[in-house]
Amino acid sequence: MNDVNGSTGMNLDKNPRALAAAPGTVPVRRIAYHPAQWRRLAFRDAVTDFLSGSDDPRAYLERCLETIAECEPVVQAFVVTNIEGARRAADESAKRYREGRPLSAVDGMPVGIKDLYETVDMPTQANSPVYAGWQSGRDAAHVYALRRGGALILGKTTTTEFGMADPPPTRNPFDSERTAGGSSSGTAAAVGAGMLPVASGSQARGSIVRPAGYCANYALKPTYGAINKGGGLGMSPSHGVLGFHAATLRDMWETAFYVAQTIGGDPNCPGLYGEAALPQAARPDAVVRLDTLGWDVTEPAAKAAFDSYMHDLGRQVRVITRRDNALIEELEQALRGIPAVMFPMLSYDMRWPAWPYRDAGRERLSPTLLSYLEKFENIGPDDYRRALDQRARLRALFSQVQNISPVCVALCQPGIAPVGMGIGDPVYGDVSSVLGTPAIVLPVMAIEEMPLAVQVMGQAHMDYPLCAAARWMADWALRRAAG
Amino acid sequence: MNDVNGSTGMNLDKNPRALAAAPGTVPVRRIAYHPAQWRRLAFRDAVTDFLSGSDDPRAYLERCLETIAECEPVVQAFVVTNIEGARRAADESAKRYREGRPLSAVDGMPVGIKDLYETVDMPTQANSPVYAGWQSGRDAAHVYALRRGGALILGKTTTTEFGMADPPPTRNPFDSERTAGGSSSGTAAAVGAGMLPVASGSQARGSIVRPAGYCANYALKPTYGAINKGGGLGMSPSHGVLGFHAATLRDMWETAFYVAQTIGGDPNCPGLYGEAALPQAARPDAVVRLDTLGWDVTEPAAKAAFDSYMHDLGRQVRVITRRDNALIEELEQALRGIPAVMFPMLSYDMRWPAWPYRDAGRERLSPTLLSYLEKFENIGPDDYRRALDQRARLRALFSQVQNISPVCVALCQPGIAPVGMGIGDPVYGDVSSVLGTPAIVLPVMAIEEMPLAVQVMGQAHMDYPLCAAARWMADWALRRAAG
Repeated sequence: MNDVNGSTGMNLDKNPRALAAAPGTVPVRRIAYHPAQWRRLAFRDAVTDFLSGSDDPRAYLERCLETIAECEPVVQAFVVTNIEGARRAADESAKRYREGRPLSAVDGMPVGIKDLYETVDMPTQANSPVYAGWQSGRDAAHVYALRRGGALILGKTTTTEFGMADPPPTRNPFDSERTAGGSSSGTAAAVGAGMLPVASGSQARGSIVRPAGYCANYALKPTYGAINKGGGLGMSPSHGVLGFHAATLRDMWETAFYVAQTIGGDPNCPGLYGEAALPQAARPDAVVRLDTLGWDVTEPAAKAAFDSYMHDLGRQVRVITRRDNALIEELEQALRGIPAVMFPMLSYDMRWPAWPYRDAGRERLSPTLLSYLEKFENIGPDDYRRALDQRARLRALFSQVQNISPVCVALCQPGIAPVGMGIGDPVYGDVSSVLGTPAIVLPVMAIEEMPLAVQVMGQAHMDYPLCAAARWMADWALRRAAG
Repeated sequence: MNDVNGSTGMNLDKNPRALAAAPGTVPVRRIAYHPAQWRRLAFRDAVTDFLSGSDDPRAYLERCLETIAECEPVVQAFVVTNIEGARRAADESAKRYREGRPLSAVDGMPVGIKDLYETVDMPTQANSPVYAGWQSGRDAAHVYALRRGGALILGKTTTTEFGMADPPPTRNPFDSERTAGGSSSGTAAAVGAGMLPVASGSQARGSIVRPAGYCANYALKPTYGAINKGGGLGMSPSHGVLGFHAATLRDMWETAFYVAQTIGGDPNCPGLYGEAALPQAARPDAVVRLDTLGWDVTEPAAKAAFDSYMHDLGRQVRVITRRDNALIEELEQALRGIPAVMFPMLSYDMRWPAWPYRDAGRERLSPTLLSYLEKFENIGPDDYRRALDQRARLRALFSQVQNISPVCVALCQPGIAPVGMGIGDPVYGDVSSVLGTPAIVLPVMAIEEMPLAVQVMGQAHMDYPLCAAARWMADWALRRAAG
């Protein structure tokens, strides 16, 4: 981990890439995950103590830094930090709390920024030599909003190459031989390890949902366009969304809403609807169980865990599945068409800027990225239009599901985080990415003491009522997990 | 005009900003504009000679450079050039033509790029100190497509500050005491002066349409999202479109279509529909005359010219006006709501990245831009959503007009280019920007030997049939102008 001030004050390796990238070359670190017992680094819940004076943002930050000092040499969640900058901002925030006038819900909150997004005080490098050392001189939209609200922009979290290809060395905070997932690798790992309460992520396939599931985070992949993704190096604008990983559902929602309210959504999108405070828990009358195309590749233990979860949930609310309802069966069949929609759109999107990057030097792109470009070299507007039409039909079908229930439940991942440097299968994330709908990750299960998450998905722009249902389901599931 | 190679080989001032920005401080240069007599610098029509060997792209480029040497000291259309780069590319192109295998419709074509868009070989500066000397290291999407097709990226054309505020020193090629318009100032002036056959422009209000009208160019402001605007510093993504100014309708269409086919449109937009070659002229059965909200501020001479034009047109095709048809009257009334839709969206869009730029140093933004930011400091998602709803109603109403005619005709400008440094009133451009529909500028009239243009507007995604109608109308109007 590099720090922009040249010294972190901690005895950390300056270059995480110098640590070998394969598991087995970092010390084995295992921490058992029990959903009901895992102690979470809440931020918003600490604000009461900031206002009473029994705690303050500087002390909170220092506790985060202690966890970072302990975990980061193995977990490798950060590319670069600005610790002294965060300390200065924390001291200013502490003063505001002492005076009883914090700037916003995020005042004093240490946050990590996925290293696809620009920061005025730290380089933005996208895990690519093309952007090595690149200083944009400005904050991305969400970074700007966070900083304006008093948040402490502590560091840049690792990502895969342009959020698409070569993985960073980041390790799972619960088992260093396993992946943290990706492309929001460092965000997932930093929050999962308790190094930060909140960090930003982005997703065009499963890059928010999957790593959150692997690292036991709550996470919001909002409705397409709900949070301004301006100032990013992502290459998948047709599906790309910005979202947040957080240690608690409250921190997740209240951060996302604050950012969206402050700096808006993507162009021609109405932004994130809702209210500033985490909604009250709301039990849905019924939920739809979706297997999605992920079920084909899901490991037996994860299938058994999800079956058991849905069975128990069925005692609380009506669970409707493909076996109960013809529309759901039709949807499940239609969801099998997702790859045929998604790959043409992803590959059409990436031609620019990836083609100019390739022209400037093939050696600066990974073999994975180059082979992807070559495979889709001849894709054109007709392919994209066909995919847009197919996607519109899928979305229209999904919108009919609201007549059955506003809440769908699915797994987040085909199994626990895999061993090795692969970042896992994004298949369960593809659904909400292509549908453009919100998904909220609930880290409420475990297999072999590793996290296994469910996601709730709802209709576009219904992020806030979905969050109310998610809160009810999290409360219920944690009681269930506590036995 | 600076050249990236340090020397232009021409005796030009290196820094156009060193020439005083006010008219009267450059030599008075006047050239009479007669629509039917004006000799145009066609490119595609020259290709026959390239293939026969009687002309070649290097010789064509050298003729452009001669015109630049003659006009540029007064007109000031360029921020920076790469003349030697263009010469090398011209020689390579000439070889391809000699071998009978040009790369594309734009092979060997000298083009200018609006200085809001990135170029790998020249800085991108947006007429702002924030980007002084900025080298992005890559080509914007449309620049990439042009270069890939063999076009000669000759220079960056001037723009207003971020396409919004402080104007460049650029002068009208037909009268140096008058503006070239903006924000696509240099693009309009360079094409108008015959320095280039084609240059790129962009528009969120009237920044393609108006300067084309002032400088006697054909221009396409395509359907929203039809041409990939990736790699630009524009601040108005909700309405911003990329388009082209050209000396001829053929160069305009064939360049736009080549670029859109090569690198696509904006995310989630289906791109530019049509075919590669300029369509045959197609006389519409009827056209709708739109006064739009521009009529209120239009000068008497321009009103008289347009009335006369529409009167004569009425002998060729049925002309339907607000007086003839209740729907058109309803539309004209509804178009008066454009400012209430447009200003909230423009100001909501610009907060990011303009707020971060302001934070980094107020002195680096113009007083105009700062005052605009301050005026809309408190705009938020609710304002934007309201505007989106209003805009959707306007668009729905306009779509009904296709039942009357696919072709609407309006003025491009409230009068000829004004004297002084102001860049003129964008009001006539606002219509197609807010409706998201295509507009094609036809420089077919003159007042006091200065250009006055009409525009044809059509339904979204109907750019190609609109171009066929525009071709018929241009042919007719030039015969009319010839007397």
